[in-house]
Amino acid sequence: MTGRLIGVGTGPGDPQLVTRRAWALIEGARVIAYPAPDTGTSFARSIVAEAIAGDAVEIPMIVPMRPGRAPAQSVYDDAATAIGGHLAAGRDVIVLCEGDPLFYGSFMYLLVRLRDSYPVEIVPGVNSLSACAAAQAHPLVARSDVLTVLPGTLDDEALAAAIGAADAVAIMKIGRHMPRLRALVDRLGLTGHALYTSHASLPHERALALSDAPDDAPYFSMILIYKGDDPWIS
Amino acid sequence: MTGRLIGVGTGPGDPQLVTRRAWALIEGARVIAYPAPDTGTSFARSIVAEAIAGDAVEIPMIVPMRPGRAPAQSVYDDAATAIGGHLAAGRDVIVLCEGDPLFYGSFMYLLVRLRDSYPVEIVPGVNSLSACAAAQAHPLVARSDVLTVLPGTLDDEALAAAIGAADAVAIMKIGRHMPRLRALVDRLGLTGHALYTSHASLPHERALALSDAPDDAPYFSMILIYKGDDPWIS
Repeated sequence: MTGRLIGVGTGPGDPQLVTRRAWALIEGARVIAYPAPDTGTSFARSIVAEAIAGDAVEIPMIVPMRPGRAPAQSVYDDAATAIGGHLAAGRDVIVLCEGDPLFYGSFMYLLVRLRDSYPVEIVPGVNSLSACAAAQAHPLVARSDVLTVLPGTLDDEALAAAIGAADAVAIMKIGRHMPRLRALVDRLGLTGHALYTSHASLPHERALALSDAPDDAPYFSMILIYKGDDPWIS
Repeated sequence: MTGRLIGVGTGPGDPQLVTRRAWALIEGARVIAYPAPDTGTSFARSIVAEAIAGDAVEIPMIVPMRPGRAPAQSVYDDAATAIGGHLAAGRDVIVLCEGDPLFYGSFMYLLVRLRDSYPVEIVPGVNSLSACAAAQAHPLVARSDVLTVLPGTLDDEALAAAIGAADAVAIMKIGRHMPRLRALVDRLGLTGHALYTSHASLPHERALALSDAPDDAPYFSMILIYKGDDPWIS
């Protein structure tokens, strides 16, 4: 009897935005893995710290934080080996994932390494699209809208084409690309339709018009664009 | 002192996938509104029925179920009047929204009518993108992928252009459009990359390859397409 690999979304940051199932699984977990930076604390772990039992076995996956580059695959090889040991011994392993496990997350690197050998369960979480729309109290998409989600790391030409084809746009992974992205949105005449959110649901959340956003945006920030002129758009 | 309009996402269907905050708000609610069909029960209400107090005031918004048509605005006028009465009297009103309140939901119709007069709070929920990816245990998007979300009600030309420009695609609101959508995905050579999910997280959830999907798909179903050939794609 092997254990299950359970990818658990912790939501955007507020511990109250964790699902009931995720919270219960974490409270009962004997083995917990999570991504962690090379210095400092794990964001995913910090969200649910209160639910983790004192005697749980913890497996931090130390992922060097270099935005825009794929982390070293050896980190996931090593983590998969450690996690696989617990699974083979019949112990479930909870893998904490900020936001949702399958929306731009690193959980897929474990999934591909372990899914052929062990049962897998995914507990979806509130993803950053819904969290940022909530912070702005602004519809993300409505009726027959087309929504496109774009990494801010793409070049201007690719971004402009995608923005042009959609009714609503979410630009993620902003960070150091902020000045360029702001200029692009302005050139497209959409600044008046663009919102900026960082650290959604956390005490230091910022929910602003894009025109009021800082140039030094964090990685966990998002630009939402709604091109319609429907009456619910401010 | 007026009450707050609180739009609460109930997630995709499993009561365990409701967030802790949503559950606590619903347990404490004195006034609860929710969309309901003209016959039968409200899906949003059914998800959290166990949390609703016996003496809560309930405001069902009877929305005629005609896929592809905007519901009669008078339903929301009437609901906004009823809800506004409670808000003006200082009572918070919880509005239940299946999935997430701001992701293709009807909550926006109340939001636009009431947000200028009363404080608004949104509690995001697990949306159907994350729920369907979880049901399939398949990444929705990774790394620098572009994700496009498309209503299945769009015509073939619009769909083909949008699918062509994205790395990953979610087609929502399928229902009676299923045979046409399946033929389109096949014509684009993407059937081998397409997954079909209905009623994600519910006991009657179906998570299939698109090629195995039934022709009579429900409205609450989704096609996910991942065009990459990365090793985690089965």
